[in-house]
Amino acid sequence: MKKHKIAVILSGCGHLDGSEIHEATMSLWAIHSHGCDYHCFAPDIDQLHVINHLNGEETGESRNVLVESARIARGKISDLNQFKAEDYDALIIPGGFGAAKNLSDYFSAGVNCQVNPEVKKAIIDMHQAKKPIGALCIAPMLLARLISGVEITLGQDPISHQNAEKMGASTQTTDHGQIVIDRKNLVVSTPCYMLDARVDQIGAGADALMTEIVEMME
Amino acid sequence: MKKHKIAVILSGCGHLDGSEIHEATMSLWAIHSHGCDYHCFAPDIDQLHVINHLNGEETGESRNVLVESARIARGKISDLNQFKAEDYDALIIPGGFGAAKNLSDYFSAGVNCQVNPEVKKAIIDMHQAKKPIGALCIAPMLLARLISGVEITLGQDPISHQNAEKMGASTQTTDHGQIVIDRKNLVVSTPCYMLDARVDQIGAGADALMTEIVEMME
Repeated sequence: MKKHKIAVILSGCGHLDGSEIHEATMSLWAIHSHGCDYHCFAPDIDQLHVINHLNGEETGESRNVLVESARIARGKISDLNQFKAEDYDALIIPGGFGAAKNLSDYFSAGVNCQVNPEVKKAIIDMHQAKKPIGALCIAPMLLARLISGVEITLGQDPISHQNAEKMGASTQTTDHGQIVIDRKNLVVSTPCYMLDARVDQIGAGADALMTEIVEMME
Repeated sequence: MKKHKIAVILSGCGHLDGSEIHEATMSLWAIHSHGCDYHCFAPDIDQLHVINHLNGEETGESRNVLVESARIARGKISDLNQFKAEDYDALIIPGGFGAAKNLSDYFSAGVNCQVNPEVKKAIIDMHQAKKPIGALCIAPMLLARLISGVEITLGQDPISHQNAEKMGASTQTTDHGQIVIDRKNLVVSTPCYMLDARVDQIGAGADALMTEIVEMME
């Protein structure tokens, strides 16, 4: 049997200015645990900014989203402009502020946010090809912007849920390790660090998400 | 019952110049999965260098080991000079080149390597307090240097095993997810990315290591 291939879009390396590292790693772990393969992608753009994760302050440095994402991917990563929906069976987007700062401008623009054009194309191409999309933590906000009427979770944060609904999504609150399944749009989401979570709970969420995505792919 | 507290020493963020991200994350996941808590530590020193993980080249930048490790720890990290063995029940050191470039100079000095003084103190204090130490990937090399006659694995790499033996360790080859247990020294090691591994195999190794460490703590 041919192994399913999952594309993963990363947004840097570290939850305050890039991909949340535990969510990204546990996504890759869940993909491999379910017998699938992955390839990572990231846009070749500068990060919005660089945050010192020890003190939470901006450093004034400049870092590239693709180059930093390569740390999580161990170099097994391509420029997102090379992504072709026909090559992959599903798409997963881990969370972290990078989804709101680098993959979109949700961090600054809120409900008026725009999604990076390459990220937008990847999501819409997969959606139109009727291939499943999984989104963790804050990443479902990108789907709220792009997929009309999508059903998602952003954990239990009322403001995030209100904003997603203003963009046309319907939302459900979730607890640790739970997923929301939108069967019509083939979208699965899980809250992860939208809640104050432990790492095993991040693993449980990623595993539940992949379990459903595998079912959708078959 | 009081939760066991595990100290984790990180060496940066990214396998080419710091902690291997999957090994570090799967260690934290295994600690939480086994019902224990963790606190991360790293030395407040400059990295040996910064490697672009996309092309493998040195960037010429300067980054701090503690600040970059904070990305993996989500800020829940302290300067290693604050570490007190009495506060922790076990110590885990993930791999990545950071163990050989920042926590020690094994990368450049080989069998003549020296371990960073704070790392050395943490390992020796835990060893003398008869508390278990787990080491992943290349990190067992630090134990080869510091714990006379320790029994470890470095996967299947003959040169690494020869070097560890020259430093006085005894070595065993291992496959994915396997551990080597030194009951006399309370040391557990697992090969992880010393082999060409998948992420679920990294998880299996970290889980096996934590299973044994929990047994040693009880």
